[in-house]
Amino acid sequence: MRKGKTGVYFIGALGSISITVVAGALALGKKLAPPLGMVTGTDIFDAMDLVAPADLVFGGCDIRRPDENGRDIFDRIAPVHPAILMQIQEELRDYQRSIDTGCSRNCGEAIEKLAGNAACGEETLRAEIGLIRSRFREFKQKHGLGEVLVVNLASTEPPIEIRACHGDLAAFEDRLDKNDREAVRASTLYAYAAIAEGCPYINFTPSNGALFPAMVQFAEKNRVCVMGNDGKTGETLVKSALAPMFSCRNLEVMSWEGFNILGNMDGQVLDHPGNKESKLRTKDRVLSKILGYAPHTHVGIDYVPSLGDQKTAWDFIHFRGFLGAKMSLQFVWQGYDSILAAPLVLDMIRLAELAGSRGEFGLMPHLASFFKAPIGVEVHALHDQFQLLLDYAEKFRRGGIHAVSK
Amino acid sequence: MRKGKTGVYFIGALGSISITVVAGALALGKKLAPPLGMVTGTDIFDAMDLVAPADLVFGGCDIRRPDENGRDIFDRIAPVHPAILMQIQEELRDYQRSIDTGCSRNCGEAIEKLAGNAACGEETLRAEIGLIRSRFREFKQKHGLGEVLVVNLASTEPPIEIRACHGDLAAFEDRLDKNDREAVRASTLYAYAAIAEGCPYINFTPSNGALFPAMVQFAEKNRVCVMGNDGKTGETLVKSALAPMFSCRNLEVMSWEGFNILGNMDGQVLDHPGNKESKLRTKDRVLSKILGYAPHTHVGIDYVPSLGDQKTAWDFIHFRGFLGAKMSLQFVWQGYDSILAAPLVLDMIRLAELAGSRGEFGLMPHLASFFKAPIGVEVHALHDQFQLLLDYAEKFRRGGIHAVSK
Amino acid sequence: MRKGKTGVYFIGALGSISITVVAGALALGKKLAPPLGMVTGTDIFDAMDLVAPADLVFGGCDIRRPDENGRDIFDRIAPVHPAILMQIQEELRDYQRSIDTGCSRNCGEAIEKLAGNAACGEETLRAEIGLIRSRFREFKQKHGLGEVLVVNLASTEPPIEIRACHGDLAAFEDRLDKNDREAVRASTLYAYAAIAEGCPYINFTPSNGALFPAMVQFAEKNRVCVMGNDGKTGETLVKSALAPMFSCRNLEVMSWEGFNILGNMDGQVLDHPGNKESKLRTKDRVLSKILGYAPHTHVGIDYVPSLGDQKTAWDFIHFRGFLGAKMSLQFVWQGYDSILAAPLVLDMIRLAELAGSRGEFGLMPHLASFFKAPIGVEVHALHDQFQLLLDYAEKFRRGGIHAVSK
Amino acid sequence: MRKGKTGVYFIGALGSISITVVAGALALGKKLAPPLGMVTGTDIFDAMDLVAPADLVFGGCDIRRPDENGRDIFDRIAPVHPAILMQIQEELRDYQRSIDTGCSRNCGEAIEKLAGNAACGEETLRAEIGLIRSRFREFKQKHGLGEVLVVNLASTEPPIEIRACHGDLAAFEDRLDKNDREAVRASTLYAYAAIAEGCPYINFTPSNGALFPAMVQFAEKNRVCVMGNDGKTGETLVKSALAPMFSCRNLEVMSWEGFNILGNMDGQVLDHPGNKESKLRTKDRVLSKILGYAPHTHVGIDYVPSLGDQKTAWDFIHFRGFLGAKMSLQFVWQGYDSILAAPLVLDMIRLAELAGSRGEFGLMPHLASFFKAPIGVEVHALHDQFQLLLDYAEKFRRGGIHAVSK
Repeated sequence: MRKGKTGVYFIGALGSISITVVAGALALGKKLAPPLGMVTGTDIFDAMDLVAPADLVFGGCDIRRPDENGRDIFDRIAPVHPAILMQIQEELRDYQRSIDTGCSRNCGEAIEKLAGNAACGEETLRAEIGLIRSRFREFKQKHGLGEVLVVNLASTEPPIEIRACHGDLAAFEDRLDKNDREAVRASTLYAYAAIAEGCPYINFTPSNGALFPAMVQFAEKNRVCVMGNDGKTGETLVKSALAPMFSCRNLEVMSWEGFNILGNMDGQVLDHPGNKESKLRTKDRVLSKILGYAPHTHVGIDYVPSLGDQKTAWDFIHFRGFLGAKMSLQFVWQGYDSILAAPLVLDMIRLAELAGSRGEFGLMPHLASFFKAPIGVEVHALHDQFQLLLDYAEKFRRGGIHAVSK
Repeated sequence: MRKGKTGVYFIGALGSISITVVAGALALGKKLAPPLGMVTGTDIFDAMDLVAPADLVFGGCDIRRPDENGRDIFDRIAPVHPAILMQIQEELRDYQRSIDTGCSRNCGEAIEKLAGNAACGEETLRAEIGLIRSRFREFKQKHGLGEVLVVNLASTEPPIEIRACHGDLAAFEDRLDKNDREAVRASTLYAYAAIAEGCPYINFTPSNGALFPAMVQFAEKNRVCVMGNDGKTGETLVKSALAPMFSCRNLEVMSWEGFNILGNMDGQVLDHPGNKESKLRTKDRVLSKILGYAPHTHVGIDYVPSLGDQKTAWDFIHFRGFLGAKMSLQFVWQGYDSILAAPLVLDMIRLAELAGSRGEFGLMPHLASFFKAPIGVEVHALHDQFQLLLDYAEKFRRGGIHAVSK
Repeated sequence: MRKGKTGVYFIGALGSISITVVAGALALGKKLAPPLGMVTGTDIFDAMDLVAPADLVFGGCDIRRPDENGRDIFDRIAPVHPAILMQIQEELRDYQRSIDTGCSRNCGEAIEKLAGNAACGEETLRAEIGLIRSRFREFKQKHGLGEVLVVNLASTEPPIEIRACHGDLAAFEDRLDKNDREAVRASTLYAYAAIAEGCPYINFTPSNGALFPAMVQFAEKNRVCVMGNDGKTGETLVKSALAPMFSCRNLEVMSWEGFNILGNMDGQVLDHPGNKESKLRTKDRVLSKILGYAPHTHVGIDYVPSLGDQKTAWDFIHFRGFLGAKMSLQFVWQGYDSILAAPLVLDMIRLAELAGSRGEFGLMPHLASFFKAPIGVEVHALHDQFQLLLDYAEKFRRGGIHAVSK
Repeated sequence: MRKGKTGVYFIGALGSISITVVAGALALGKKLAPPLGMVTGTDIFDAMDLVAPADLVFGGCDIRRPDENGRDIFDRIAPVHPAILMQIQEELRDYQRSIDTGCSRNCGEAIEKLAGNAACGEETLRAEIGLIRSRFREFKQKHGLGEVLVVNLASTEPPIEIRACHGDLAAFEDRLDKNDREAVRASTLYAYAAIAEGCPYINFTPSNGALFPAMVQFAEKNRVCVMGNDGKTGETLVKSALAPMFSCRNLEVMSWEGFNILGNMDGQVLDHPGNKESKLRTKDRVLSKILGYAPHTHVGIDYVPSLGDQKTAWDFIHFRGFLGAKMSLQFVWQGYDSILAAPLVLDMIRLAELAGSRGEFGLMPHLASFFKAPIGVEVHALHDQFQLLLDYAEKFRRGGIHAVSK
């Protein structure tokens, strides 16, 4: 039995993905759309008693202020039919008005430029963490929530240099005590605060400041579920489905060139080399892990404003087969970034809530298929990653597993 | 221990795939190219003691006569580097000159037009089968072979209407006795003759006249290994790798439109509606079997002479995700048909030879991943099919399995 | 000086193109969108004093009845921003309610199936023409219009067999008198009625029953402007822009394969072989006329319901260059059919109105760039066709040309 | 009447384009292939009495040494049928052995790394120019040539900063006298030397060090024909054919993103930011010049070794039409760089030879269609550029023009 409703606190709560998650939960609640795109919407997960999207309470913080303009909603979730949007627009605006002002500490110039008057004025890192924790508590109390989960949907930060202190919890705590601002990014503070408050934490971004080894140790110590990094929604999803085919046929991938163009705020931020760097690190790794060797590869990401949320990717795969003959496969992916990401966020909220309620803690490897760079998982082919989730679900279907009280 | 060399008899021995198989075995034997494109060329299969491609002796029959023109070889295997071709051209010409005249009984107008003076003059079906069997025996004796495998690489026949007699061996034998020419196509006669001679038989074509249930019963009765249908080399290969991705993400495939253009003799024959029909049947089935529902789908095949052996396919996949948003994935496959098919033929020859030597018989379900429509196998996702082969290979790697004497 | 407002009568007035034309005129009138996509929206045509879209009065007939469902408008013009649609939906619904019941005489099974209770009950062709003429007059009187133009936007009919009577006005009049129903399609009756009433007539469809030579003679005799056939909006537009490039470089186009998929009612009708035939005739001709030789070419059109109005075309162009090397160009066109067509319809209405007011009559060759198969024009490269329009416009810019009273 | 044979001296004589030009002239001379890809191979130019490719004598210099390996020829001109290559390989090797050692003065690190022992040891710029001039003279004398043309086919240099001295011949001569090495690149020295020797000069590269205004003044002063810059062979060719289509339809190009991948030495050099910069300058300009406004545009070039000479480009064009609807056109160009470039080089040699023989001098604007950034020409649409060439040819067809003696 759940004690009260479940809350979800988004870092980056006014971004397109957050808005789409909330819109989706509203639309599903009103039966305006089927749960397509949501993995947990299939009957495989029926035996699990996952929390219903409509029973979630959403909140969060953002460094931007909500757009008061009524047109905004239609533009932000453009691919959704206006007839649906009209029936949820009031609640969506209420959600937007409820958002806290976020903190952009150490996020790089691209993000900080977007932050008008972001609230990061505390004197010490510990004080900032304290402020963030109080926000989580306020959200919980205000809505009388049994539990709060925290999901990082903020813009990608530049990668933080991983030093010895990030590998050991004690060393990292010391850096916080010493107020070493070089050792953290905003994502670090939010992740730390979430775990300190006992909130399951999901890092949907490639930002590596959130779930480095010391932070995972912190989660284990506090018996909190965490998982990341970088939601796998588009080009990399296709990559992880297609690359194994070449192995199955002993075809040598000589080159795999990918070009991504997109026009949402994610694209705008990724247009800055520092922030792009984080993304490319998680994208580039997948291929050589699946193939077992490193083909010539390049992943380009360009900001093309006219595309809005419609990410378009062209991948050119040059491969060699029998008797050295060269052949090619190209694909063009045209998907709405937030539309693809939002249902996965709902999936992970539901599965993390379940894991938490059952007393699981630390990393959640069965969520590997949702991430470009799943932490602690050495399985990269989509099919094999999905099998981890099916195996997890299978235990419930067999009936032997029940919720465990904390 | 193998008794003598292993022979391979091709139906359609002057087609591009056959020529490429022979060229490949020659080039591999001379170490002119690595075994790319050949699944059994990976170290997974090292423990199996498969017959080396260079140890195979090739022969076969064709309804066409070999081109005496020297330029022919370069054109037929165009994507192979001329430096390789120059070193094998003499042996390739010898092979071409050794080919028997084939029979085109009941293959449809498109194929029969290609057959100049094909040898099908026997009075009864039993006599024709007897003639074919004698060809197999002559080939075996001439080269002192321990075993002969038969592979159907002939042009696609129009589908035969499957009647009650095709479902029961006794009924079918009766039809042969009664000389019922409507019950057979050329592929039927060759398959029957192979099995009667104890030769493992592979149907690489979509022609359904070869391995209907009565024929499989005949193989089981004669303790002969058989498998088919329709080698999976291009568009359908990609389909069976990609379609599961949509299931993994609960994305609804609304439409999957595929357009294939190609210019080799296969394309020329498939330009005839009857012959094309066979192909479309095996191609179309895959999708709904993997997805569990039938999206709007169309597979077009057009003959474009300028492309030669380079099959080009454009697939447009229209799918629906969260909140009903429509998105798309397109791919363009540009592969050389014969270059892709030939190593799979070698794979299956090697694996069928092994199976035969171990006393296995009947269908070989572990070869499912090689076929568009694997007989007797209800597994359609490429990854799952490949797992069947890995499981088979795994038994050898564990060391518990040895060759069984017949 | 124009005498009263100008009316536009659409055959196929409830189709997507008609609806989009009306929506566009409304939106332009309310300054909700710039005149993009409309050639006459550029300043080249400023000197011409063309009738403003907002000053047009629209009506027409259709074999279907209007959808009374409010959701309809959003679905029909899906690519238009809902904020625009909300401001014109009332007027759009008024327009839809005003539409006459049309006649589907002899249009082929595909169209006739769509026609519920289409009004074609007259006893003779002459009587049917009379009925149609009376509709035109009623429309003119009801709105006090100075002039009415008629535009054929109906679904594509199967091609009519062009006989001797279609080449000579007297012979054709005789066929009408003799009530020879084989000599006409619905498009014939509407075109004849329009010309008889002195209404400029545009055939935006590939239907060849409208403007055969005898009909053009009738237009010349009655001093009425006419033009057709088949609006050039998508794949063929690109073709006529790209094909000259190959000529400019002396590159030999060996094959040009085009695959079109679309899901609107046009697609549904074109799914029938008879109706598709009309379309393919106008599409196929373009290439060989531009290149001066006939490459291998195939144009496929498939109905894919999920695409709605978004026509998607893949074209594969295989060409040969220096030393016989084969290369390729592919393109994928993703355009909304009605969005592309509607502004061209407005262009032609404006230009035909001008031509009529100046006393021009017969064919309007300066409109060639708008058509796939411009009647009486032997210029097929897009650029050269556009030059005809620029030359026409240039006369006005030079100031030497003024409206001529009839 | 020509006095003796015509010589062609290539800067970059061992590059793929040069080799292909020579191979092409040989093959055309032996009637092994038709003159496809060569604009002057069409009958439009029949009246011009252009020099036959087979009558050209080729030489040149390169900073690399010829590959002595016999396999080289097949790899360098891979798309040409081996049967053709076998008949010209001896002469091609003779050509390669005849090449002078070139100079890589000031060409940027990427090129200089390729130059083993390039001969640039002279003390002053004037001395280096003198050395180059002597090479041109030696080539002329050795073969008893009536005239020598110089074509720059060397790798792209980083752009030179255009200063005041590049705009005025006297100022530039002063810089040479003062031995100001910052004012020149290797291309400058070769262009100057060619003009000084009275050799028509073509700059097929984007290097801006060759034909700045002062150099054009030098050509006019010496009455020598020159033209450049940057041969238009692939993506930009398509751009200049397609972009006008959007203007013709008043469709707003919002974004035009282009990604080029290639694997020849050109690609290798362009992988260096400095050298790539030159290329992007000439590529980027075309679009805004044709459209009259600047869409969001990005041109990426990546080095993908496995592709060799097969340049592949994906362009994504996002455009807005009627009522603000967004649509797209994508194209994929797969062409062999040298195969496309070589015949244009032959075209320009033939046309420059004619112009020189007729006493024309200075820029040759009728060659605009061959260049990405034609100097002194404000016409950018392919069709309009081609018209300049047709107009030039038309004068000959009318018979009014004859060769003028110098």
